[in-house]
Amino acid sequence: MKRARPLSLGLGNLSQADFEAPTERAPRATRVSRVDRSLCRALLRAAGSPAVAVRLWNGEAISVAEHAPVGTVVLRDRGALYRLIRNPDMHFGDLYSLGRIDVEGDFVALLEAVYRGMGSLHGSALVRLRERLTNRPRLNTLAGSRENIHHHYDLGNEFYRLWLDTAAMQYTCAYYPDPAMSLEQAQVAKLDHVARKLRLKPGDRVVEAGCGWGGLALHFARNYGVTVRAYNISSEQVAHARERARGEGLADRVEYVLDDYRNVEGTYDVFVSVGMLEHVGRANYGTLGEVIDRCLAPHGRGFIHSIGRNRPGKMNAWIEKRIFPGAYPPSLAEMMGIFEPRGFSVLDVENLRLHYARTLRHWLERFERNAGTVEDMFDPYFVRAWRLYLAGSIAAFTTGALQLFQVVFARSTDNDLAWSRAHLYAPR
Amino acid sequence: MKRARPLSLGLGNLSQADFEAPTERAPRATRVSRVDRSLCRALLRAAGSPAVAVRLWNGEAISVAEHAPVGTVVLRDRGALYRLIRNPDMHFGDLYSLGRIDVEGDFVALLEAVYRGMGSLHGSALVRLRERLTNRPRLNTLAGSRENIHHHYDLGNEFYRLWLDTAAMQYTCAYYPDPAMSLEQAQVAKLDHVARKLRLKPGDRVVEAGCGWGGLALHFARNYGVTVRAYNISSEQVAHARERARGEGLADRVEYVLDDYRNVEGTYDVFVSVGMLEHVGRANYGTLGEVIDRCLAPHGRGFIHSIGRNRPGKMNAWIEKRIFPGAYPPSLAEMMGIFEPRGFSVLDVENLRLHYARTLRHWLERFERNAGTVEDMFDPYFVRAWRLYLAGSIAAFTTGALQLFQVVFARSTDNDLAWSRAHLYAPR
Repeated sequence: MKRARPLSLGLGNLSQADFEAPTERAPRATRVSRVDRSLCRALLRAAGSPAVAVRLWNGEAISVAEHAPVGTVVLRDRGALYRLIRNPDMHFGDLYSLGRIDVEGDFVALLEAVYRGMGSLHGSALVRLRERLTNRPRLNTLAGSRENIHHHYDLGNEFYRLWLDTAAMQYTCAYYPDPAMSLEQAQVAKLDHVARKLRLKPGDRVVEAGCGWGGLALHFARNYGVTVRAYNISSEQVAHARERARGEGLADRVEYVLDDYRNVEGTYDVFVSVGMLEHVGRANYGTLGEVIDRCLAPHGRGFIHSIGRNRPGKMNAWIEKRIFPGAYPPSLAEMMGIFEPRGFSVLDVENLRLHYARTLRHWLERFERNAGTVEDMFDPYFVRAWRLYLAGSIAAFTTGALQLFQVVFARSTDNDLAWSRAHLYAPR
Repeated sequence: MKRARPLSLGLGNLSQADFEAPTERAPRATRVSRVDRSLCRALLRAAGSPAVAVRLWNGEAISVAEHAPVGTVVLRDRGALYRLIRNPDMHFGDLYSLGRIDVEGDFVALLEAVYRGMGSLHGSALVRLRERLTNRPRLNTLAGSRENIHHHYDLGNEFYRLWLDTAAMQYTCAYYPDPAMSLEQAQVAKLDHVARKLRLKPGDRVVEAGCGWGGLALHFARNYGVTVRAYNISSEQVAHARERARGEGLADRVEYVLDDYRNVEGTYDVFVSVGMLEHVGRANYGTLGEVIDRCLAPHGRGFIHSIGRNRPGKMNAWIEKRIFPGAYPPSLAEMMGIFEPRGFSVLDVENLRLHYARTLRHWLERFERNAGTVEDMFDPYFVRAWRLYLAGSIAAFTTGALQLFQVVFARSTDNDLAWSRAHLYAPR
């Protein structure tokens, strides 16, 4: 692995020393002590004895699992083991990115085994202690949000274009009513599923909070005869979205606003937000509810699509620090903190957890096909970090550590409701 | 109106004095003072100035509404006004039942106007004060639940047979995918909708918590090839259910158990509960979650159907006291208190609020057709109390004061999930 440029974007806070560990110190020559072995076993037990093996820097393999390991975690030096013990959630990602940890076998299957092991520990004293010690997510003030969003979404449109769908450039969970669908089909199916849930009709004024590269707004305007004002604080995304709207001749029907959702103005028939809530932060749910209450017409329909959890819990520390600063996936009860204080009526909740796992599979395949290009854009550490992030996210969704909630809501007093959800499944 | 037998079942706690007010004192001859008028106006304003008029005992009409009144509340004596002022939620129902209050115009429309008025007040100091002062619901201990359920469900199967559907004797919200359906069609459609949500398959072991007169269990066993063990603490209902199962030759596939849901034993592929949660009480949600966790197989599916709210709030005091002791309709966030502590994954939530309003319309029509028979069974006060309860419930659902939530859930680790909900809407 070649040496990184000073600091790669995705790995902002690592010091130079972190890059120097493995080969220089010839770790394979270092002996493994009894203490090393006990610590390694303790580490595995603390992780719920997952069905994985650990191979130490001298080649020796250790496992505490009852079942045959689905893969092997290779620790290249003793320092990696000690760092893992200090803060496994945080350091596993960094050490893997640096190549001081490697993985043999099916990466996703191995991460699933780890998630399952951790899941079996829920509520144990160790887990509660660890949760108390880990950092709180960064604050999503107006300035904080801009910085947090810039960190992730302004990595360059060219980078995302390498592995997202070409149909609508959606960086959110797709919808696979037929699991054999391609990524492109499933992303378009998602947009139509959302449009049907919102019962869009020509002339509707739509406001979108967090519009990514603008694909949903374009799709709605193009196919449903609505006008859309779409908010986003990522300047690169907004620039791209505006260009696409002009190119498609939709600039008079779709307006992209480089501003925070908290500054939404006007009155709309439809409020839609796909994949923004993860970045809003619990402390701002009340504010989000106020914004919706302010801007939604009396018979307006609302929709929020977000990663979530079965019960409150923190984002994985490494993902929160290196990949998605400020991110927090809420439980459904926490999500209700948006709706209940304003008296909104939740009409429909759908959990698309396995759809996100499939979406991520497609992304990871495309990412791997383009790994060389990504390495040229950034560096090998960045490639490894993103590989872990994508594979780890698959594992989080397949093991139930993460959920994907789509919530349809309306004002409490609105009786213009569909008598069933059959229209979502009607042939076109 | 003839004098009641000593105490009618539905009006348990009224004293003899309550029955003696109007005619004996010749209220129409009593003058109306300026204080009476001011108090009446204050009462209307405190109720959010609903679009109703009040006619006092001297024939004088008062309204503070901006819009034309949809109906008139007739106060037959001064004492009725003063009682209303002391505790309107509680006394309106009692005074109406006794005939000291009457209503002219469309009863449901008038109650809707009152609900809308009250809804406009949400969060006001007055409302918060009133909420603090009103009583807590009665406790749902094992013995308390038996008593509370006996109060309502053991009024006699003959009584309920007069106005519930004849198809499955369902005393819960029906499902009208086509709003022109009959009550019978909609109750069967509800049972099939639930069966599809649970993806029932032949051989499934189903446990039902709170089975009413047993219609769901019979429908599932008869049409889906499953076995059902159904729990209920209403002895009259269980006796009826067992008789029906024997009559249909399904007694080997459906077992009715006269016991509390907390005592459910065994392991099941499916947990289903339709219309019981309202009687469980928030304090027991954790226990209910434990019961489900204890009895659901690893790949089990779960379903709970319950009246709910857009935000936490108490049951109407009169309904809670006279009709449904111990009842509490939860908000969705509160309902998550069942699922989140055990890590269950909520897969689907559907809000059927307007379906309950329509169900209640059908019930009220049948009730009115049989009002004479009901009066012979009980007394005229009982008829008026139940008329108010049914009409008031329609108004609560049409104005959004109450919701109806159907929640599908599974264990977090279960990946045998449907890729879409299209199967709920497939032609038979």
